Amino acid sequence: MNADPHPWACDLVPLYAEVWTRLTRGVHDRHAPARHPTLATVTPQGRPRARTVVLRAADKATGTLDIHTDLRSSKIADLRATPFAELHVWDTSAHLQLRIEAHVKILSGEEVQATWRAIPEASRLSYGSDPAPGQSIARSLDYTKTSDPDSFVVLRLVVDSVDALHLGQNHRRAKFDRHDSWAGIWLVP
Amino acid sequence: MNADPHPWACDLVPLYAEVWTRLTRGVHDRHAPARHPTLATVTPQGRPRARTVVLRAADKATGTLDIHTDLRSSKIADLRATPFAELHVWDTSAHLQLRIEAHVKILSGEEVQATWRAIPEASRLSYGSDPAPGQSIARSLDYTKTSDPDSFVVLRLVVDSVDALHLGQNHRRAKFDRHDSWAGIWLVP
Repeated sequence: MNADPHPWACDLVPLYAEVWTRLTRGVHDRHAPARHPTLATVTPQGRPRARTVVLRAADKATGTLDIHTDLRSSKIADLRATPFAELHVWDTSAHLQLRIEAHVKILSGEEVQATWRAIPEASRLSYGSDPAPGQSIARSLDYTKTSDPDSFVVLRLVVDSVDALHLGQNHRRAKFDRHDSWAGIWLVP
Repeated sequence: MNADPHPWACDLVPLYAEVWTRLTRGVHDRHAPARHPTLATVTPQGRPRARTVVLRAADKATGTLDIHTDLRSSKIADLRATPFAELHVWDTSAHLQLRIEAHVKILSGEEVQATWRAIPEASRLSYGSDPAPGQSIARSLDYTKTSDPDSFVVLRLVVDSVDALHLGQNHRRAKFDRHDSWAGIWLVP
């Protein structure tokens, strides 16, 4: 029998530490699984939506995660109606699924000016397009990308809880809650 | 300039065909990206939820996708309250994101008996546990997996629309709708 390749999954404290190690790696390593999580929201009509996003910041101390987007994207309309999101990460090599419940603050204008200035010019083209994202067009390339600071939004996810599922020789699942100071409890996988 | 490695992304008909090629590959190839999509639902309290699932069947002719789960999992409670889901696939090598809106039928009991009988004995342990999935337990392994046909559920996703985003030298995005016989329209990415 091999030794468990992921000993951090066996206890709550190291498991929670590993969650933030993986999230932080996603911010700094474009090949890390947490670089491209899936963000789930609820539409104003109450329907589920999910899309790939890029993780831009992770702060274990405050329990917050940042994502950048266009003010006119449909996720903004979703979050104005229901300011809650779930961020989902599936980390193949760690055999680890993260399901992160958060309430979301939509930051724009002056409060994101410093962040905007730090974004390379080429990357700024992701924020601003004509027509707006999601509008229908006659031909596939009937749009232009522009760089528009007024379209730039930071979604600040204030984490409420983390559900961590590890698929090992034995499966383990824990839930960590802000209101419990992230102490964690075990759940049936 | 290199030739486009994904010429199917340039026109609506081949793009829609590629969507189902990739989904079907997910059913048959455990290493294909569509093998493990993310399923987004809405809780009875109106909150978004997302988790990795395994794609078990894909039928282009009827526009349906099947997932297997435990009757007592939280996604069943979600789908009983809001019978809609979005299935999300990010296919790295194809540079393709699929966002699949569907309404969901919960099949169990006699109508899934034939499917149950075709599942290998070892895999049946995924359906049935004591306590139920998501219950809190004192220690991480305080549960047993059992094989319970009464806990076995097929979620049949009846696809309403597919949003396909291809990230190439130029980005292209199309939406295909059942009510439009899947003809498709282009959207701003």
